[in-house]
Amino acid sequence: MTADVLDRRSDFAGLLTADGEPWHYLDTAASAQKPRAVIEAMSRALGPDYATVHRGVYGRSAQMTLGYEAARRRVAEFIGATSENEVVFVRGATEAINLVASSWGGANLRGGDRIMLSTLEHHSNIVPWQMLAERTGAEIDVCPLTEDDRIDLDALEAMLTERHKIVSLAHVSNVLGSVLDVRRAADLAHSVGAKILLDGCQAAPRMVLDMAAFDCDFYAFSGHKLYGPTGIGVLWAREDLLDAMPPYQGGGSMIDKVTFAKTTYAPPPQRFEAGTPMITEAIALHAAIDYVDALGPDRLFAHESALANKLREELRNINSVRLFGPDESAGIVSFAMEGVHPHDLGTILDEENVAIRAGHHCAQPLMEHLGVPATARASFGLYNDESDIAALLRGIERTQRIFG
Amino acid sequence: MTADVLDRRSDFAGLLTADGEPWHYLDTAASAQKPRAVIEAMSRALGPDYATVHRGVYGRSAQMTLGYEAARRRVAEFIGATSENEVVFVRGATEAINLVASSWGGANLRGGDRIMLSTLEHHSNIVPWQMLAERTGAEIDVCPLTEDDRIDLDALEAMLTERHKIVSLAHVSNVLGSVLDVRRAADLAHSVGAKILLDGCQAAPRMVLDMAAFDCDFYAFSGHKLYGPTGIGVLWAREDLLDAMPPYQGGGSMIDKVTFAKTTYAPPPQRFEAGTPMITEAIALHAAIDYVDALGPDRLFAHESALANKLREELRNINSVRLFGPDESAGIVSFAMEGVHPHDLGTILDEENVAIRAGHHCAQPLMEHLGVPATARASFGLYNDESDIAALLRGIERTQRIFG
Repeated sequence: MTADVLDRRSDFAGLLTADGEPWHYLDTAASAQKPRAVIEAMSRALGPDYATVHRGVYGRSAQMTLGYEAARRRVAEFIGATSENEVVFVRGATEAINLVASSWGGANLRGGDRIMLSTLEHHSNIVPWQMLAERTGAEIDVCPLTEDDRIDLDALEAMLTERHKIVSLAHVSNVLGSVLDVRRAADLAHSVGAKILLDGCQAAPRMVLDMAAFDCDFYAFSGHKLYGPTGIGVLWAREDLLDAMPPYQGGGSMIDKVTFAKTTYAPPPQRFEAGTPMITEAIALHAAIDYVDALGPDRLFAHESALANKLREELRNINSVRLFGPDESAGIVSFAMEGVHPHDLGTILDEENVAIRAGHHCAQPLMEHLGVPATARASFGLYNDESDIAALLRGIERTQRIFG
Repeated sequence: MTADVLDRRSDFAGLLTADGEPWHYLDTAASAQKPRAVIEAMSRALGPDYATVHRGVYGRSAQMTLGYEAARRRVAEFIGATSENEVVFVRGATEAINLVASSWGGANLRGGDRIMLSTLEHHSNIVPWQMLAERTGAEIDVCPLTEDDRIDLDALEAMLTERHKIVSLAHVSNVLGSVLDVRRAADLAHSVGAKILLDGCQAAPRMVLDMAAFDCDFYAFSGHKLYGPTGIGVLWAREDLLDAMPPYQGGGSMIDKVTFAKTTYAPPPQRFEAGTPMITEAIALHAAIDYVDALGPDRLFAHESALANKLREELRNINSVRLFGPDESAGIVSFAMEGVHPHDLGTILDEENVAIRAGHHCAQPLMEHLGVPATARASFGLYNDESDIAALLRGIERTQRIFG
């Protein structure tokens, strides 16, 4: 598969600069641009189709409820869930992980229990567990990385004990693009009786998701990284786990019966969706999944890995560039230029209509491990091609001249 | 002010049926239709303007960050906040109340402390406090209603003690339209050293909000009821309270520095906005506030109160109708028809292109107080006029014929 098979730039209004020039957007790992179908779905849902869900006795509200629940079924199908009741709509992956840490973790962890994370986790997969640890007295262990900066599953195997109740790992690193062997990680977690949560933020937009094959317990991802709108994400969890979990937020729609003496709760997923949900966001996410699924996540993975490989190859030829992460990357390339702060590189590239991210990428412990305060990161989406790499390389050359 | 001064129906694509007929939408208390300006702001933000916030080193991300923070300032100005740092973007009012109950309540309530609610609260202003009570051992008191179904502030005065740490009340009842004397309620709460939270869901779209004049401590409302998008709402809180509150969710953007040994948090409001925020929703909410503010919340209140008065007058002439709530209503009228379940009424009205809500309106304790399992509720928005009342009355007459 060559890198230019997918020619879908014209579906994305966001890929032009204000002057109508091509914008070389290499920050899809932060957030993806949205295809026209998503924006149109949002406009229809906010406009002629608009009504609230779950409550109205009139036709339009019933229609909107069907649309909202159809989005849930579409997510379930997309990720290979057993049932749509395993799909909880949340604000994003961050909320999904907080929900699990607070609800499942609060009910299941005690002082002396242990939580297993890894060195390369995003803050959203660290801080909620630290908050849980503080609340319960549980402690956190950190699985180290291999020499080429993948989560070291041999080390995980050696470290796991029966005191570990939860293992929570990134499916794909948001900094390095390293891909986890999820099935082995799940088997290791389960071998000591622990549950496993996968942070699928970077995997959902570029890999085939199959909850049954992964054999994980919780899976989290964000809509806006999957070419969908902001303000929505997905928590998938095994139905038996959700069934046993106490509510996370209280309010309308998540109750069975409310009295001041005693309140009982609805079954999942409603139990975890208090208040008016992200109605139009769910419908636009449905459109995003239709779009991505029509292209084929396996093709997206091949496309973006090929671009990442090509970029790594080119950067390897530049003496002043240090590359991070494994050779095989799911479309995300972090690097540093000797003598140039990543922010300065980013600023110069911006003048060339090239957008990269520079910073700690919400992964400060990984930065410490890599021995740098920040990296430059180029991340690919389905709309990128070799012209974006060429533009990036031109910008790097110019930066070298400026700083040389 | 007559009820037809505001002629803005043409701004709302949602006010036509699928056949292009006028839709008599009387369910604005559940969720408001969106003006074109909001939908266009959303489309631009998801399309040509799209980028993530707070992170990118490139121009478009900086622009989007300015837009997101401008939305925060616009909210602050709209509600008379002292500073935009008092404005936290949340998913909706439900999350706002959960955030306060969990973060402020968890840090400040102990066994023996008391929480004061009222009989007419929405489940979103009951269940989070029940969850907090369960967690802390605090107990809940319920302020009764006056004979005409307003929160009885004389009773509140008599009931409040120094053991009450928080009073949490609806500014406007979502079932009855009853308006709280917020300043008196705040003074009463403060006289015993309690904080006061106001659920402003129904007030924000139809009243002038002035945090300084209200002298409250927390104020919560949802964007989708304020003619804005779903998936966003606002928690306003005094800066000194926010400063002292622990984080609610952990993740990116809410941290100062993360290490596995110790994590420190950003100041508010960022401390309470973990993860990629509702970027495009904030920008569309900004457009909604511009729209509402240009019309003038005082005019909206006059317009919708006049419609509510008119409807109550008409319904009073129908023998089989029982009216609930006070004569003075902020645009929300609940009623029941003898011998007709509200759901059946709602279904017949739907055939006449009239949308009302029928049910418990997420206020089961109030239903119990009123002695009914459900009410029919007509609620007005800025786009309603007397033709909507006429259509509703025609539908009620037809229902009488069917059930008579």
